[in-house]
Amino acid sequence: MDLLIKNGTIVTAKESYKADVAVNDGKIVAIGSNLDFDADKVVDAGGKLVLPGAIDVHTHLAMPFGGTVSADSYLAGTRAAACGGVTTVFDYPVQHSGETIMGLINSKKEVLEKEACVDYAFHCCITDLNGGEILDEMETAVKEGITSFKCFFVYKKEHMMVDDATFVRLLLRAKELGAKINLHAENPDLIDMRTEQFLKEGKTSAWYHYLSRPEFVEAEADKRAVHWATHLDAPLYIVHMADKEGLEECIKAKTEGHELYIETCPQYLEFTCDVYKREDGRNFVCSPPMKGKESQDALWTAIKSGMIDTVATDHCPFQSYEKDWGKDDFTKIPNGCAGIENLYPYMLDAANSGKISFERAVELCSTNPAKIFGCDNKGSIEIGKDADIVIYDKEKDFTISVNNMHSDCDHTIWEGKKLHGYPVQTYLRGSLVYDNGDFVGTPGNGKYVKRSTSK
Amino acid sequence: MDLLIKNGTIVTAKESYKADVAVNDGKIVAIGSNLDFDADKVVDAGGKLVLPGAIDVHTHLAMPFGGTVSADSYLAGTRAAACGGVTTVFDYPVQHSGETIMGLINSKKEVLEKEACVDYAFHCCITDLNGGEILDEMETAVKEGITSFKCFFVYKKEHMMVDDATFVRLLLRAKELGAKINLHAENPDLIDMRTEQFLKEGKTSAWYHYLSRPEFVEAEADKRAVHWATHLDAPLYIVHMADKEGLEECIKAKTEGHELYIETCPQYLEFTCDVYKREDGRNFVCSPPMKGKESQDALWTAIKSGMIDTVATDHCPFQSYEKDWGKDDFTKIPNGCAGIENLYPYMLDAANSGKISFERAVELCSTNPAKIFGCDNKGSIEIGKDADIVIYDKEKDFTISVNNMHSDCDHTIWEGKKLHGYPVQTYLRGSLVYDNGDFVGTPGNGKYVKRSTSK
Amino acid sequence: MDLLIKNGTIVTAKESYKADVAVNDGKIVAIGSNLDFDADKVVDAGGKLVLPGAIDVHTHLAMPFGGTVSADSYLAGTRAAACGGVTTVFDYPVQHSGETIMGLINSKKEVLEKEACVDYAFHCCITDLNGGEILDEMETAVKEGITSFKCFFVYKKEHMMVDDATFVRLLLRAKELGAKINLHAENPDLIDMRTEQFLKEGKTSAWYHYLSRPEFVEAEADKRAVHWATHLDAPLYIVHMADKEGLEECIKAKTEGHELYIETCPQYLEFTCDVYKREDGRNFVCSPPMKGKESQDALWTAIKSGMIDTVATDHCPFQSYEKDWGKDDFTKIPNGCAGIENLYPYMLDAANSGKISFERAVELCSTNPAKIFGCDNKGSIEIGKDADIVIYDKEKDFTISVNNMHSDCDHTIWEGKKLHGYPVQTYLRGSLVYDNGDFVGTPGNGKYVKRSTSK
Amino acid sequence: MDLLIKNGTIVTAKESYKADVAVNDGKIVAIGSNLDFDADKVVDAGGKLVLPGAIDVHTHLAMPFGGTVSADSYLAGTRAAACGGVTTVFDYPVQHSGETIMGLINSKKEVLEKEACVDYAFHCCITDLNGGEILDEMETAVKEGITSFKCFFVYKKEHMMVDDATFVRLLLRAKELGAKINLHAENPDLIDMRTEQFLKEGKTSAWYHYLSRPEFVEAEADKRAVHWATHLDAPLYIVHMADKEGLEECIKAKTEGHELYIETCPQYLEFTCDVYKREDGRNFVCSPPMKGKESQDALWTAIKSGMIDTVATDHCPFQSYEKDWGKDDFTKIPNGCAGIENLYPYMLDAANSGKISFERAVELCSTNPAKIFGCDNKGSIEIGKDADIVIYDKEKDFTISVNNMHSDCDHTIWEGKKLHGYPVQTYLRGSLVYDNGDFVGTPGNGKYVKRSTSK
Repeated sequence: MDLLIKNGTIVTAKESYKADVAVNDGKIVAIGSNLDFDADKVVDAGGKLVLPGAIDVHTHLAMPFGGTVSADSYLAGTRAAACGGVTTVFDYPVQHSGETIMGLINSKKEVLEKEACVDYAFHCCITDLNGGEILDEMETAVKEGITSFKCFFVYKKEHMMVDDATFVRLLLRAKELGAKINLHAENPDLIDMRTEQFLKEGKTSAWYHYLSRPEFVEAEADKRAVHWATHLDAPLYIVHMADKEGLEECIKAKTEGHELYIETCPQYLEFTCDVYKREDGRNFVCSPPMKGKESQDALWTAIKSGMIDTVATDHCPFQSYEKDWGKDDFTKIPNGCAGIENLYPYMLDAANSGKISFERAVELCSTNPAKIFGCDNKGSIEIGKDADIVIYDKEKDFTISVNNMHSDCDHTIWEGKKLHGYPVQTYLRGSLVYDNGDFVGTPGNGKYVKRSTSK
Repeated sequence: MDLLIKNGTIVTAKESYKADVAVNDGKIVAIGSNLDFDADKVVDAGGKLVLPGAIDVHTHLAMPFGGTVSADSYLAGTRAAACGGVTTVFDYPVQHSGETIMGLINSKKEVLEKEACVDYAFHCCITDLNGGEILDEMETAVKEGITSFKCFFVYKKEHMMVDDATFVRLLLRAKELGAKINLHAENPDLIDMRTEQFLKEGKTSAWYHYLSRPEFVEAEADKRAVHWATHLDAPLYIVHMADKEGLEECIKAKTEGHELYIETCPQYLEFTCDVYKREDGRNFVCSPPMKGKESQDALWTAIKSGMIDTVATDHCPFQSYEKDWGKDDFTKIPNGCAGIENLYPYMLDAANSGKISFERAVELCSTNPAKIFGCDNKGSIEIGKDADIVIYDKEKDFTISVNNMHSDCDHTIWEGKKLHGYPVQTYLRGSLVYDNGDFVGTPGNGKYVKRSTSK
Repeated sequence: MDLLIKNGTIVTAKESYKADVAVNDGKIVAIGSNLDFDADKVVDAGGKLVLPGAIDVHTHLAMPFGGTVSADSYLAGTRAAACGGVTTVFDYPVQHSGETIMGLINSKKEVLEKEACVDYAFHCCITDLNGGEILDEMETAVKEGITSFKCFFVYKKEHMMVDDATFVRLLLRAKELGAKINLHAENPDLIDMRTEQFLKEGKTSAWYHYLSRPEFVEAEADKRAVHWATHLDAPLYIVHMADKEGLEECIKAKTEGHELYIETCPQYLEFTCDVYKREDGRNFVCSPPMKGKESQDALWTAIKSGMIDTVATDHCPFQSYEKDWGKDDFTKIPNGCAGIENLYPYMLDAANSGKISFERAVELCSTNPAKIFGCDNKGSIEIGKDADIVIYDKEKDFTISVNNMHSDCDHTIWEGKKLHGYPVQTYLRGSLVYDNGDFVGTPGNGKYVKRSTSK
Repeated sequence: MDLLIKNGTIVTAKESYKADVAVNDGKIVAIGSNLDFDADKVVDAGGKLVLPGAIDVHTHLAMPFGGTVSADSYLAGTRAAACGGVTTVFDYPVQHSGETIMGLINSKKEVLEKEACVDYAFHCCITDLNGGEILDEMETAVKEGITSFKCFFVYKKEHMMVDDATFVRLLLRAKELGAKINLHAENPDLIDMRTEQFLKEGKTSAWYHYLSRPEFVEAEADKRAVHWATHLDAPLYIVHMADKEGLEECIKAKTEGHELYIETCPQYLEFTCDVYKREDGRNFVCSPPMKGKESQDALWTAIKSGMIDTVATDHCPFQSYEKDWGKDDFTKIPNGCAGIENLYPYMLDAANSGKISFERAVELCSTNPAKIFGCDNKGSIEIGKDADIVIYDKEKDFTISVNNMHSDCDHTIWEGKKLHGYPVQTYLRGSLVYDNGDFVGTPGNGKYVKRSTSK
């Protein structure tokens, strides 16, 4: 055996129980009471939790956006991931008119092969069907393990928006292939109209970023997407759900038996739109923006009731000087915040404080992401799975600060957030990559995760 | 090691994976790839599924009812259970006015200590608070592991009905104790009124059993119960849900974050009210009766969407001659059918045919029952759990017949039902109790399951 | 012509327009621009509104209740009615076990023939079917113009409650006869249970009257009643709706095409449960009690959207000394308040202030009551109708006080309420009965209104 | 007096009663029992109904569309109207990019001044804001009595569609002005996508017209429109509602107190999508198309429950040879059918057969249209209103045929429809324009109806 983790409490999406875990060749090979295998390395996890590594299914690394590039390179982003207990990262490369899926993906893979500190997968954002050729190419992409694609209902001016017909064609094609469509749901026309009006009226602070795309502007898009997906009986995954009305429509569809998945992000669970009134409100600018308390409460209710399926980060940080571009004009603030290193600690803190169970935290951050997106070897501490393991100390206190984060970004919206309980070690396929504050892995050791379909 | 089950595919509520299972002292002690422990007994489960034993949380054994006693003694009922892959049975003793909970339970325990072929637990039906003393005694009962209590909204004439105030007092008391209230929800006044009228009009066939308590008569009671439970923020478990309208109200409450559990039974998933038009319709008489196709479809949708929590049997068979009492008067038919041996095979057949996943079947019949009702050592193939294990052959064809069942009842509503896939062995805490058609256990070996609260 | 009302603005449930109204033999015989008939009496209504007399379909006059009798005799109550623009009053005699409908009604008629200052009709409250005889007698009652019957879901201890079966039998019988069932919807078991508990805990102030029957206790009964009525496709009229959740269930049923009518009362539109915290809270004690702001807002929304059908008073005042019986025990406060003289002025004030239209006020207080309850000659200023007419001065300011009311009760919950606009004259079938502050009619001139069915 | 209509039964939106009606100078001046004025003309309406003329708020006369012009000129269309009891017609001129509202309206008025056989009003369709100038001009238009404007969510390729931002700007502007926005709600992207696909697959029959825009394609647009209107608290009028799901969303919004109006058309009440399977299916092609039985039933339920506000025709006929253009390609069929002469007879037949009341028919076809769209002198038989009166014979049998219609169109979808009861005379402001089968009015006598706002 390569590794034996002893005396810990294993947490799955359904159960917690004391047992030892044995790892060989990067896989979990045995779980048991008092396993007494010989092992190269023996770790005592007594009093600690032994969790599957988190899977952050929503990140934007090294992404050109808003006139710059998101602050975390693939190296920095996956390094931060490892230090937050995330052992698989999904990136969102954006296809533009004329580009092929595989051309884009392969160019990203090349970089990641050198830089990845944890395992990685891709959803591919589709912005143009290239006259239908993309629909054909999707079959190839799926065979290569790209089994999910994203659409934007927004970013019309940036030529990233898909209209309803394109969205529906993608939904139907994905269904055919056993793949999934992920959707960024906000209404572009209303955003543009309101934005224009605010600028005209000299309303330029970050608060107007929120007001240009408030609850009902997100909700319309959610409802429209659910309408098409349910009537066409096609699976749909809505990313970064942030408003109550849209959430409720999704939940209704789910209970009627439709295959609909809902993702939310820690920022919507922690902050409300009030942050945009702060002096440094621009640092919190992301899309969709944080919403009011009522929406936040509804998100928590759905986290608890099982109606939300995943929590992911939408990690897309920008440096302070870039955020400052929008000091006097909210439209100039690059959209996005850091979060990849905070996801698992945040959700586990919610468990540690009794808000949810640890099983539920594991389900949201690891097991469900793996199941929904076809990472067959990930998502659980179970025989045959990759030994992506996080050792979590329920008693360790931790205060988030840009100083103890491992991203390249020079600030964090989570600054000062106190957590009770924190990961102390992260193993990637059996290799220690994070140890009590330090990244100890090797860039390039992360591997591509070829994903399966739902067929 | 006492037992090593090799080469099988373990199914949990979330995952399926190939691994060996090692058992010692009745507990699962190790799970792994190619475990090479020495063991007293080695079983090759190659090509087969290795499942946690089912937990039938709804049975009525040796129960006085309708002028007779249900046909299966504790011995016969638990024997049949073992042969159907059920390793824990919940009985429903009925407290009557003046009786104490523990007096009743202890009298049942005495019998079961001698007769039980599988493990057993009790929900206690409460029909009278004895001036409030029962509310006090509930604390003792909970300490003794009786952590759930049942109420009837029906059986007014039989003095088993509780009124809304009693129901609410029980709900609140159970909440206080971390216990649960189970409810049989139908409206007694409407049933009695309609029954009286049908008899007056000479409408006496089994079909009028259905018509005396159709969909909306059940739905009213479901809705009323959900109303009280949600407004008082108290957990509620509704047994044998059989109608669409009530189901939808429950689902709505669940999605709003209320702690509400829904149970249905195989008979509602397989049959519709049309069976009451059959010559032998009386044999299908149970309460609530099977409903129309629309309700059946809604139940399946909720089985698939995750909204139903458990499937159990309401096992309460009566002999043919007893059923015949009601040939000319449906009110004279003792209510209830056999099912304890059919639960797991039926739900696993649904998985085998692709209607649901095997994981979902396990969740409904084993993992959820254990979690909801505090059977901490049951419900999953996981280290530390009791080695209640079923070996399931996906390729074995089986046709249910009274001849191959192990109940004492002389007929079955499931006669002729063809299943693809069937259990081949059942282990109770590591001991073989069922082997390919035969009961091989020992009455009295079943043990009382002391249950935990949700606190 | 007996009477010519000139230059006023006639208001119907749909329109307002300037026209003269001619009356002969107690009937409206002509409406026109500049009618120049000869008439015994000519009234100049220039600048004023000419409205149909209100119909208060919910009063309890001279009613034995709570160990006393409601404070207004038929004479006093109908006198107050006339002075508030109410020209038809519905009384609610209560049948008790053993009594016949017509015996009861006739005994009331005898008194009213001598005392009635305005026209009158009866709904008959049914509390016991007398073994089914009442169902038979309902046919006779309907022929005599008693085309509506009331049930209580409450007052179990007072033997006035009907169970669900009795309610359903009445619903079905009334449907058969083209009659209607009115329902007082609250849940008796919960009220009794909560009351008992509060008394035990020494919580005896009027505030606990509210807490013993809060929103959800009323809502359960509303929902149950709607459930039966819609599933049995029988008309139902719910009296004094006071809570949001029940209201919403009713509205849903209405929009699905069910024949359901909703009545609310001015007290629920004006006051919230906060009044029960006042020193004189006991004076506001009625059942159902006033509810929270959310319910009040929902009632107003339904008043505006057309979803509420009628506003009536539940007039049932008790003298101060009687209310005082409950100073130290809310259960000893006789339930009920005065309102008959305030209904129309209150709703018209709402119109005058722009909250609703005058047409809607007329519809709620006159036209709809007449239509729903079969007063074919009442409810509108239209040719052939009884000349029940109110002249309303939109500019007259009025402050309600026990001193300017015409009830026999020695206080009013409306004390100090300022109204803009007030009735200046009331005509009963062409005869002036109220003139600018004074009752000028004659007791005994009111006539029995024989009502039609909906067949 | 110019005209005295004696002995008839007047029907308003709320009441029916026997009375005579006197008319002078085109206005109703008196209503009464046995009016004995001298009059130039006395009509005996004994045994007949006296109704307000219908107001068809949805017609397209002489409209360029689909490569041709709708078959009825203003003269022919308003002549047919008169013969069907319609005394006011709303036309829908379509503004195109660059055009002003008043330029367009005035050009239409010029024609109508010569041709109109009944009174007329305009909703103006807005397809382009001309850089915002249209928003300014709307104020002028409103002052000129154009108090409603229409948007299309469809006809994207024809450059008639407005996007969500334009729609919202119009909603807000109209609200500001006390005007209304009417909406044609279907989703253009889906229609175009499905159409393209059907053509590619050689599916070209009229049936594919329906399938290119089925229930859910209309419903999406309804729901989106309701979403914006309710969240912005702006009034909205949805034209030709034809599907259940959209209807239900509208109804929900109405019951929540939003100012939302729903119009449907006789064709959706009479026909289902099955007509598109007929040999002559192309003649029934209109947009939205007729839908399935479930939608039709829902429309009738809403007609009965009061949730639908108006019935109008969407009259837009095309000659047979034009319809034939699409024999082999449904996209070449000009969209639209005749109906203006059938509206009132059809809805009154529904009343005569007991489906609805005559009062409701009058409300839907006359009173509500007048109230919603500010025709202050229209919509009721009431003092001061225009004497637009229809005499209706409940006993007259009539079979619709192109031969007895007064349109210029050479066929009708209503061919062969039997009606029980039919209008025998139509009066426009006191002048007879239709008499028992014949148009007897004078083109050019129709007048422009300057409408009021809701402020």
